Amino acid sequence: MKKFKLGIIGAGTVGSSLIQMIRNQKKTISEKFGIELSILEIATRTPSKVSGLIDCKISDDWKNVVNNSDVDIVIELVGGTTTAFEIASSCLKNKKTFITANKALISEKGNELFQLSLENKAEIGYEAAVAGAIPIIRTIRNGLGPNDFEYVAGILNGTTNFILTKMEVDGLDYSEALKLAQDLGFAEADPTFDVEGIDVAQKTAILANLAFGRSISMDKVSTRGITEISSHDIQSALEMGYRIKLIGIAKKIGTKLLINVQPVLISLNHPLSAIMNENNAVFYKTNFSGSGMLSGAGAGGNPTASAVLADIIYYANRKEIISANIEFMEKNIFSSAEYASSEDESSRYYLRFTTFDKPGVLSEISRVLGNNGISISSVLQDESIENEPTTVLITTHNTNQVNLAKSLEEIDKNRSIICEKTIAFPIIENL
Amino acid sequence: MKKFKLGIIGAGTVGSSLIQMIRNQKKTISEKFGIELSILEIATRTPSKVSGLIDCKISDDWKNVVNNSDVDIVIELVGGTTTAFEIASSCLKNKKTFITANKALISEKGNELFQLSLENKAEIGYEAAVAGAIPIIRTIRNGLGPNDFEYVAGILNGTTNFILTKMEVDGLDYSEALKLAQDLGFAEADPTFDVEGIDVAQKTAILANLAFGRSISMDKVSTRGITEISSHDIQSALEMGYRIKLIGIAKKIGTKLLINVQPVLISLNHPLSAIMNENNAVFYKTNFSGSGMLSGAGAGGNPTASAVLADIIYYANRKEIISANIEFMEKNIFSSAEYASSEDESSRYYLRFTTFDKPGVLSEISRVLGNNGISISSVLQDESIENEPTTVLITTHNTNQVNLAKSLEEIDKNRSIICEKTIAFPIIENL
Repeated sequence: MKKFKLGIIGAGTVGSSLIQMIRNQKKTISEKFGIELSILEIATRTPSKVSGLIDCKISDDWKNVVNNSDVDIVIELVGGTTTAFEIASSCLKNKKTFITANKALISEKGNELFQLSLENKAEIGYEAAVAGAIPIIRTIRNGLGPNDFEYVAGILNGTTNFILTKMEVDGLDYSEALKLAQDLGFAEADPTFDVEGIDVAQKTAILANLAFGRSISMDKVSTRGITEISSHDIQSALEMGYRIKLIGIAKKIGTKLLINVQPVLISLNHPLSAIMNENNAVFYKTNFSGSGMLSGAGAGGNPTASAVLADIIYYANRKEIISANIEFMEKNIFSSAEYASSEDESSRYYLRFTTFDKPGVLSEISRVLGNNGISISSVLQDESIENEPTTVLITTHNTNQVNLAKSLEEIDKNRSIICEKTIAFPIIENL
Repeated sequence: MKKFKLGIIGAGTVGSSLIQMIRNQKKTISEKFGIELSILEIATRTPSKVSGLIDCKISDDWKNVVNNSDVDIVIELVGGTTTAFEIASSCLKNKKTFITANKALISEKGNELFQLSLENKAEIGYEAAVAGAIPIIRTIRNGLGPNDFEYVAGILNGTTNFILTKMEVDGLDYSEALKLAQDLGFAEADPTFDVEGIDVAQKTAILANLAFGRSISMDKVSTRGITEISSHDIQSALEMGYRIKLIGIAKKIGTKLLINVQPVLISLNHPLSAIMNENNAVFYKTNFSGSGMLSGAGAGGNPTASAVLADIIYYANRKEIISANIEFMEKNIFSSAEYASSEDESSRYYLRFTTFDKPGVLSEISRVLGNNGISISSVLQDESIENEPTTVLITTHNTNQVNLAKSLEEIDKNRSIICEKTIAFPIIENL
């Protein structure tokens, strides 16, 4: 039986899960795939934590792993883009297969690494970087490979989906739901990366790269998080037949791509609206295979380690091809994408105005919207309390972001009627 | 660029789609996969239908394709298990990769073919045989490969799911919905294969084989179709919070497998209950990756052809490995499964009794159920019309099939109270 020798760098939650999984699933792996995996060397900040799990060389210096000439495949579970990039590039230059769960690294430094990969005939696996246990990378690349994509969209961050679920189901406000997520270990002490949509933006860029075969600059991914969403928005949306979800979407408009991350009111009839708690899902539409969705656990030690291990097996298998024939390298070097501008995209919108309770407010708002060619679909104003600010919810018919931004700028400037910045989210029936 | 030469046998809906797709997606395929595919020879019953689509050798004799020494990969789209088996075995003996969309062939003759595959170092691809465009074979085999499966369950037949949807949404009865499906081309003139669950049984057996790594005998797959489901059942189930779906499930009970196909009342909270019309979905649970679902188009020319083409690309790629190293053959030869009996499985049940409208009926039914250890969860009896048969709907708490069968046999024998055979479907909250 063919043997592959692994080097693992980083032994936190995912790393420890992976070490145990490789040990426990030896029989399954050899039965299903006809290969034997053995861990030859590990580097981790605190070797003492790992030494009980496995008997192999363990140090605190990643260079030992990357320079071990017997290691065939290196798994990087360090995170970030500095050390991780050094690890990746040294590894590829040493002609070792490089497997990672690091979405920041792939979305920001992918192009450089794919170039190194090609030059050195060493492949890169990153199934675990997007949507944890959901095998979406392999599905876009292989299962749906013959297709041209119309769009790929997803709920790609478990933390924010958990917070939105708790705000809806338990009626918590944003800060209470965030605190709960932190207490349960779903959110970091500094939650910026998740709640501002940066994590989703990185994952969406990776999906866009694969689905459309173009290299993507992160600065072209328009990104907005969930911090402006109120419980009132969530409940009002539900009453209108929508659920608010943080959606990352990459979509073809003509020959250009529109890529954005934002809270969206998505119809309760759409399958993405049913993805609750910390789950993830990716919904796609292609020319031949039509629409489809993959859903499952988006994070966690075992789900992520399982995706890493699936990559190890897949690329172990491919090492034999690559050494025989460079033509069979997976293609990752693509020309740059062209980007559509927000003028190219129109949508219905949900608008939340916080106004002073006095006559003429609604007529002024509707006048400005009308002047910018935006027609109103519905208006909902709660019973107001005298001298308290009043919330006016308006849904619009289709408009583009430029006209909308112009309108809201003009309305929000009018401090005699508006007390707070107006909030707008797109409304989507079908993606 | 590496070239692969294809031979296609059968040019009906899927075959014609495939021919056009290979022609139109040449650029996508070479960009994404670095290979060039060309169709060298086609065999079809009516060559004249294909000659306009493509310029290559076309005959009405499959032997021409299988014996063409320049053909690397043969695609069988004939169906059935007689000619298709001859094609498959000749093809493997000639060391050509064999790709098929034929679920009957794989579920019934798979073991023989996998043996031939191993002996001749020629691989078999059958992604298109289960759930059309949904890449479930590759997902179970690769994406979730490191996992042990607890179960895999699916809505695997578009025809029956379409019929059940129409019965619910448009209030049609079974025969009206079947007729509509036939008129729209979703059901055959003789619908037996679909409506009796045979198609689902074959697909479930294929999924079970891959998920559990055991060879499966079709005669161990307990199979029941949708013909006994009434509109009344569907509406009553909905009122109770369930939707009736035809579910194929393969599930581990200890070291044994339970594999069955049957209508099930599945909770409206379960994602499978939301799969409507002709769509398919597969829901799984594994030890590491947890639960997940894949959904999408289950049939149709383009979706199926796309799955076939994904297989062609995947196995083309692998031809290089196989020729280098037999150890890298995908493993398909497994020891036989052991099967759990229905006594090992317990479930809640939905029972529909058709009774004479007279005193003592309910007490007699509940007496017999009680004697067999089955306790009642709810009873629903519609307002009865004098001298007309009355429907009594009973849901039970957990019981096994043996006790249930014994009870229903005794109750149904009592012709003074029962007018028609009692119908029972399992109720499932979580699979």
